[in-house]
Amino acid sequence: MEFKNYFPIWNKLNSEQQERIMEVLQFHRVEAGTHIHDSGAECLGLVVMKSGQLRTYMLSEDGREVSISRLFEYDVSLLSASCVMPDLQLNVMIEAEKDSEFWSIPACLFKNLMDESAVVSGFANSLMSSNFSELMWLMEQIMWRSFDKRLAAFLVEEVAVEGSAELKITHEKIANHMGTAREVVTRMLRYFQNEGLVKLTRGSVEVLNEPKLRALAE
Amino acid sequence: MEFKNYFPIWNKLNSEQQERIMEVLQFHRVEAGTHIHDSGAECLGLVVMKSGQLRTYMLSEDGREVSISRLFEYDVSLLSASCVMPDLQLNVMIEAEKDSEFWSIPACLFKNLMDESAVVSGFANSLMSSNFSELMWLMEQIMWRSFDKRLAAFLVEEVAVEGSAELKITHEKIANHMGTAREVVTRMLRYFQNEGLVKLTRGSVEVLNEPKLRALAE
Repeated sequence: MEFKNYFPIWNKLNSEQQERIMEVLQFHRVEAGTHIHDSGAECLGLVVMKSGQLRTYMLSEDGREVSISRLFEYDVSLLSASCVMPDLQLNVMIEAEKDSEFWSIPACLFKNLMDESAVVSGFANSLMSSNFSELMWLMEQIMWRSFDKRLAAFLVEEVAVEGSAELKITHEKIANHMGTAREVVTRMLRYFQNEGLVKLTRGSVEVLNEPKLRALAE
Repeated sequence: MEFKNYFPIWNKLNSEQQERIMEVLQFHRVEAGTHIHDSGAECLGLVVMKSGQLRTYMLSEDGREVSISRLFEYDVSLLSASCVMPDLQLNVMIEAEKDSEFWSIPACLFKNLMDESAVVSGFANSLMSSNFSELMWLMEQIMWRSFDKRLAAFLVEEVAVEGSAELKITHEKIANHMGTAREVVTRMLRYFQNEGLVKLTRGSVEVLNEPKLRALAE
């Protein structure tokens, strides 16, 4: 099975533990736009990415969003398994941004493995620590970095993720990533356009001057 | 020793592990205002509170602050032991808000215990999960809750913590708790004063109408 190549601690598990995982492991293939995990719904379990792109985000009561992280090939996420973590109350949603393939290890099995194995528990620790660091970084950005810098950084990241300077993304979607209102995004993008950094067309943002955007972001 | 009454997993450790902790455990007595932990400095280790009040906070490059959490009697914090957690990069400071007493378990011992014991590792997991939940909650507040509600909530919390409606706290300090500028706090406090919610005097804020503040906060 190829799952073992994607699961970082596979070789540190004993064969009995490996078998128990294989017995209940689920494989998922989803289309772009699919909602994979809803904080209110059942607990999906540990997600191990095979291909594609998922987005984890927070959702406010009145429907506003902000992206927390993105998952690519080989990434593992505990945010979809908050039920297995003691004292973790999350309000996290996960959706597929691209057609994606991933495995999930059901929550109850992962919890059992955590309880019996310091290796698995340590792995969960390391995942939670990464999440925590990312969230602190994000909070620093939101609190203390001006919006022009954040938007510039977001566009530079998108160009890298998409491998293209022409980004098929609406202002609404950008606003959802950044936790702000569409109008705020539109205003700043128009300013960027006036400065010759981007070109705006219906449903897309073309990055014209990536080096200058990158400089602005830093 | 009374430490064992303050350390939640003491009875789940074997006697050999308990002895190793006792050999290196440090007891600290600090005055209000003392800086206990600096993200850049050496790693203090796991903090176990005996009495008093500590504040953990983030510090931006240009000196702005925002409170993450407070530690009271019986609280345990891993934020002062970020070096023991894999993949944890933090920018967290800790200071004493009141005269305080606490123990610290040195980082290297705690790390060893985590590696060998699923109980200790699970305990670290639970601490990290709480931290993560708190941080997500804080981020929701900062992003999506208006400042008047946040300030009202802060004042209500302070009254409970201090056990007094007259809070000896400067606008500057409140601003540091809330991650904003002093002017923003002063403006909102004056608005609260006009509404009869508080009375402002030099160096203190007196809460006049707690039920109304509480209602505003909710």
